[in-house]
Amino acid sequence: MSRLYLDWNATTPLRPEARAAMVEAMDMTGNPSSVHAEGRAAKMAMERARESIAHAIGADGADVVFTSGATEAAAMVLAHRDLDCAAVEHDAVKAWCNAVLPVDSHGIVTVADPARSTLQLANSETGVLQALPSGLAVSDLTQAFGKIPLAFNWLGIEAGFVSAHKLGGPKGIGALILKKGTDLAAMIRGGGQEQGRRAGTENLIGIAGFAAAAEAAQRDLEAGLWDEVAQRRDALEARLISAHPDIRIAGKQARRLPNTSCILTSAWKGETQVMQMDLAGFAVSAGSACSSGKVRASGVLQAMGFDDKQAQSAIRISISPALGDDQMNRFADAWETAYSRWRDRNG
Amino acid sequence: MSRLYLDWNATTPLRPEARAAMVEAMDMTGNPSSVHAEGRAAKMAMERARESIAHAIGADGADVVFTSGATEAAAMVLAHRDLDCAAVEHDAVKAWCNAVLPVDSHGIVTVADPARSTLQLANSETGVLQALPSGLAVSDLTQAFGKIPLAFNWLGIEAGFVSAHKLGGPKGIGALILKKGTDLAAMIRGGGQEQGRRAGTENLIGIAGFAAAAEAAQRDLEAGLWDEVAQRRDALEARLISAHPDIRIAGKQARRLPNTSCILTSAWKGETQVMQMDLAGFAVSAGSACSSGKVRASGVLQAMGFDDKQAQSAIRISISPALGDDQMNRFADAWETAYSRWRDRNG
Repeated sequence: MSRLYLDWNATTPLRPEARAAMVEAMDMTGNPSSVHAEGRAAKMAMERARESIAHAIGADGADVVFTSGATEAAAMVLAHRDLDCAAVEHDAVKAWCNAVLPVDSHGIVTVADPARSTLQLANSETGVLQALPSGLAVSDLTQAFGKIPLAFNWLGIEAGFVSAHKLGGPKGIGALILKKGTDLAAMIRGGGQEQGRRAGTENLIGIAGFAAAAEAAQRDLEAGLWDEVAQRRDALEARLISAHPDIRIAGKQARRLPNTSCILTSAWKGETQVMQMDLAGFAVSAGSACSSGKVRASGVLQAMGFDDKQAQSAIRISISPALGDDQMNRFADAWETAYSRWRDRNG
Repeated sequence: MSRLYLDWNATTPLRPEARAAMVEAMDMTGNPSSVHAEGRAAKMAMERARESIAHAIGADGADVVFTSGATEAAAMVLAHRDLDCAAVEHDAVKAWCNAVLPVDSHGIVTVADPARSTLQLANSETGVLQALPSGLAVSDLTQAFGKIPLAFNWLGIEAGFVSAHKLGGPKGIGALILKKGTDLAAMIRGGGQEQGRRAGTENLIGIAGFAAAAEAAQRDLEAGLWDEVAQRRDALEARLISAHPDIRIAGKQARRLPNTSCILTSAWKGETQVMQMDLAGFAVSAGSACSSGKVRASGVLQAMGFDDKQAQSAIRISISPALGDDQMNRFADAWETAYSRWRDRNG
């Protein structure tokens, strides 16, 4: 039986549209900064991709600055600004901000001073969505982009950032989105690329894949594919809760991404579950990929009031339109069998 | 007649080996930070690529940190260190150092304090090669890697950096190479990737292309292809000088990259030449791609003692093993015709 990938929030398989666009871009020779025909062709392809991405994220007319991913974009827009944030932010954000904002038991953050704060739109571990306050300085849109309808220009925020590999694009390319004309000193310097905001020859093949993936993701959203994903996720949760009333779903009372389920048992360690499920043919995760491999409990769940033992028992299921009902049931069967065995052994 | 690309130092076409490796990597789903089978497979592929690249650059056992390119790597290792450098460095280096080191008329730099200096191995505009002093803090190896034999471990330097797209790999991926265990604070933070030196999900497809390109470049070097390139470059220069004794070749008396020729006329503007040659079907450049489009004269040539008018008359021809004698002659014919016409009009 083929393996099932239920770790969509960590990274996604490359979409066929992205693959085709990347293979096509492999034939472009020029450097977008060169003035000859080869350079101009590369530049034109890059600017078309930039417009596609802006359009897909509802940021027509805003400034889209290509970066090597969301982590770099976070550093560009957050470093040395000392903004306030909550402990539920991704490590790439927490590296630069003061995690002082309160988080309630549903995972909802209260922002005191939007202009001096950064707040994610969607949490990668629980899927919890925040209502972004108007005038917010920065928002991490990485997990939301491609999974829920999103219009940067209507969010009322100054800056946001995204990554291609969360929506079927390649790893290693992302973007910082800024309200038109926002001032930003370059972190990577020494070339006039990206309107002086980010030096370095641009990742043309990655950019082509990013744009194609963003367009395809937009089409999927419009076709309602992610509504079906939410139904399947909800059905999975209902089945597991009905069979095992002791489990908890982090953030279940909040608005969440359609595809994410953070399941806590009493004391079955998340890491153990990940390994057991991996052997059984399912890719799931305990916490975000970036922090996996570490033994500490999820800071996200602790911020929501779960104790260490509960937080360490969490696994994240993050699914996609590629998984149908049969496959969801296959996972549920395997997980329930393993959990029952664990309970038998651990009283 | 098909166009000829003589702007290899700006960027290179993707090698077939790199393309194949990238297409293969497109099938890998996992995030290298994930612990499940998909993640481990991605991690293993990435580490194999890292070893290939280390081997190709003679840096076995050194630390190879993947970056989004040489410009990012330069910022990582140079920012806020205030090292000394010469005005012939690339803008990505000059952005972070004091351009105080003397440059002679051949383009050769004298370093006073190697441990507090950065010096390029090869200049992108003239091809001039530097003898790197032992104990040098940092060297920009970007233009040299793939064009001349290179062994990081024997250079006696602390750190170097390179970019894949200069040797037939994709744009948007490069590496910082550090003597084993060198301390380096991350510039992009918030994840444990790259041994804590560079956070962010890695550009797996780009990395695969980089490794395949580096291996292929190494094979080309060993097969002597770049010796033939040097012969063709030398023949071109001899032909042009013989027909037009007034032209000068910057750095001709110095050791140079095999493929680079920086040609100065009396007053025919480099930018005009680039446009005329472009229309005639040849991609060449005036200065480095990153600074093209700007009207100022090359800082490299000014540092070598050329005046503004001379410096503005420069074009850079940078060729590859892909160009044979016939094609070199086609370029020489076109350039000589255009130059004769310019001379007729300008007395």
